[in-house]
Amino acid sequence: MPPRVTVLAGGVGGARLAHGFALALPDGGASLTVVVNVGDDAELHGLAISPDLDTVMYTLAEVSDEARGWGLQHETYATLDQLGRLGEDTWFTLGDRDLATHIVRTARLREGLPLSAVTARLATALGVRARLLPVTDDRVRTLVDTPSGRVAFQEYFVHRRHADAVLGLAFEGIGSAAPAPGVLDAVAAADLVVVAPSNPFLSVEPVLAVPGVRDAVRDAAAPTLAVSPIVGGRAIKGPAAQILETLGHEVSALGVARLYAGLVDVMCIDQADAGLAPAIERLGLDVVVTDTVMGGPGGRERLARSLLDVARP
Amino acid sequence: MPPRVTVLAGGVGGARLAHGFALALPDGGASLTVVVNVGDDAELHGLAISPDLDTVMYTLAEVSDEARGWGLQHETYATLDQLGRLGEDTWFTLGDRDLATHIVRTARLREGLPLSAVTARLATALGVRARLLPVTDDRVRTLVDTPSGRVAFQEYFVHRRHADAVLGLAFEGIGSAAPAPGVLDAVAAADLVVVAPSNPFLSVEPVLAVPGVRDAVRDAAAPTLAVSPIVGGRAIKGPAAQILETLGHEVSALGVARLYAGLVDVMCIDQADAGLAPAIERLGLDVVVTDTVMGGPGGRERLARSLLDVARP
Repeated sequence: MPPRVTVLAGGVGGARLAHGFALALPDGGASLTVVVNVGDDAELHGLAISPDLDTVMYTLAEVSDEARGWGLQHETYATLDQLGRLGEDTWFTLGDRDLATHIVRTARLREGLPLSAVTARLATALGVRARLLPVTDDRVRTLVDTPSGRVAFQEYFVHRRHADAVLGLAFEGIGSAAPAPGVLDAVAAADLVVVAPSNPFLSVEPVLAVPGVRDAVRDAAAPTLAVSPIVGGRAIKGPAAQILETLGHEVSALGVARLYAGLVDVMCIDQADAGLAPAIERLGLDVVVTDTVMGGPGGRERLARSLLDVARP
Repeated sequence: MPPRVTVLAGGVGGARLAHGFALALPDGGASLTVVVNVGDDAELHGLAISPDLDTVMYTLAEVSDEARGWGLQHETYATLDQLGRLGEDTWFTLGDRDLATHIVRTARLREGLPLSAVTARLATALGVRARLLPVTDDRVRTLVDTPSGRVAFQEYFVHRRHADAVLGLAFEGIGSAAPAPGVLDAVAAADLVVVAPSNPFLSVEPVLAVPGVRDAVRDAAAPTLAVSPIVGGRAIKGPAAQILETLGHEVSALGVARLYAGLVDVMCIDQADAGLAPAIERLGLDVVVTDTVMGGPGGRERLARSLLDVARP
């Protein structure tokens, strides 16, 4: 039996690592579960948008726009163009094919189907073999405190291009959110639990903060492992480095390790950060040093294989 | 002051005649009101579709696909294609640009705006000068009785390509529907009220059957006029001839005139049907004989000018 791997993921970093596991596992990902952040979900033009879920889904289906890191390949923008003519805000780019996902998701949610069931149907339709789970079926919304006030996540991230200093974060609705069906089991029953190299504050925290999830990771019988999204003091993608800094953390794999100490057993860091291994070990973490910068499918599969070595036999 | 013209319309025939008035009136249509059928509205993929309203709106905005008679010119179908991949029914063709209309309408309706207000916004955004009014803001749905049972209008019209014999029609919700704001006034205050050459059963009846509308037309101070959609015993477009036949009416301009006798003052028929004028006059109707087959903008404007001669001075 292939090892059962559960990945906690945000957008691009989580998507790429999940894809690596799908490539590395002999069953094409059928033994892989990806638990995905929904704090960056938004309603735009009345449509339910789940950017992280879609990034993971499109990447696993191998239909994502790899150069851009989000959305579908070969996209066109006729609907968005016309939405603009009709007076709608168009700062959030929605491709014509991508819109089909949002239209179907919105319709099914309005019919009363939970997000987890909608996601399963969409993923199946796109040929994804891995199980894709929103961390919760309840409404959680990440709010970002900036010098000019509290704004919705996509306002901060897309509209303002994550240029504001992040002074704090809130996850609206998270206190009363319940893990989606299968989430806690996927962590408890795994042979390896992996916190993806996603943004610790924007992507991972709103997954862990859903009541029950952090405890499930801490109590998992399997080895638990986090991959640093910071390499050589910089984020691979996105505002992780800025946010670590404004929130008073060291901008390094060690700074990330301090966030995850007490939660996971193993910290995976890049070869560029090998010198930080002793300090990370002093936090009580085991350290795996490997090439964590994934890029294309080859790099993803290689990283996943390195991490599978940690899985319980 | 240009004459105030109010047109009761369904889809293509109503749209073309309304466009003719917009071209013929010196104010570009600002004194024109088009009251449109909503019985063929439908929900598809969770989106609120109003085919007749959109046909009139796109035609007045001069962005419609004239060859096809519906939808927008220069359309693409990437979203529909992807909806099909996601397992959705795709028998109702929705273009990428057209979808923007449905997305915005759906969003505004869900925010609580009535259809008349949503329609006004959309029409304004597209540069339409005429006032476009759904006959009602309430939900009315045309149901078609066929030999294989009662089906929703778009199921009959688009999915089954209006191939079934129409044994009867029902307008769900019409008993409790109220005319949209402005509808009754637009009829009462007009200098000319025109029943467009739309399908009498599928398009005109669900307008007239909204409580108050038929009486308003009958009681209008201005001349009231109906244009026959049957020319030379055939329908210009669509299933009007078949339906007249299966419902036991004569398939001719005279058969149509019998439907509108007692409602309007004047019947406008095509030159091809000039021989029917005496029989129509015996129904108590005045008759205008002209070229009623509109085709392109020139024919539309010409027909509208002929009808404007009937308007009260």
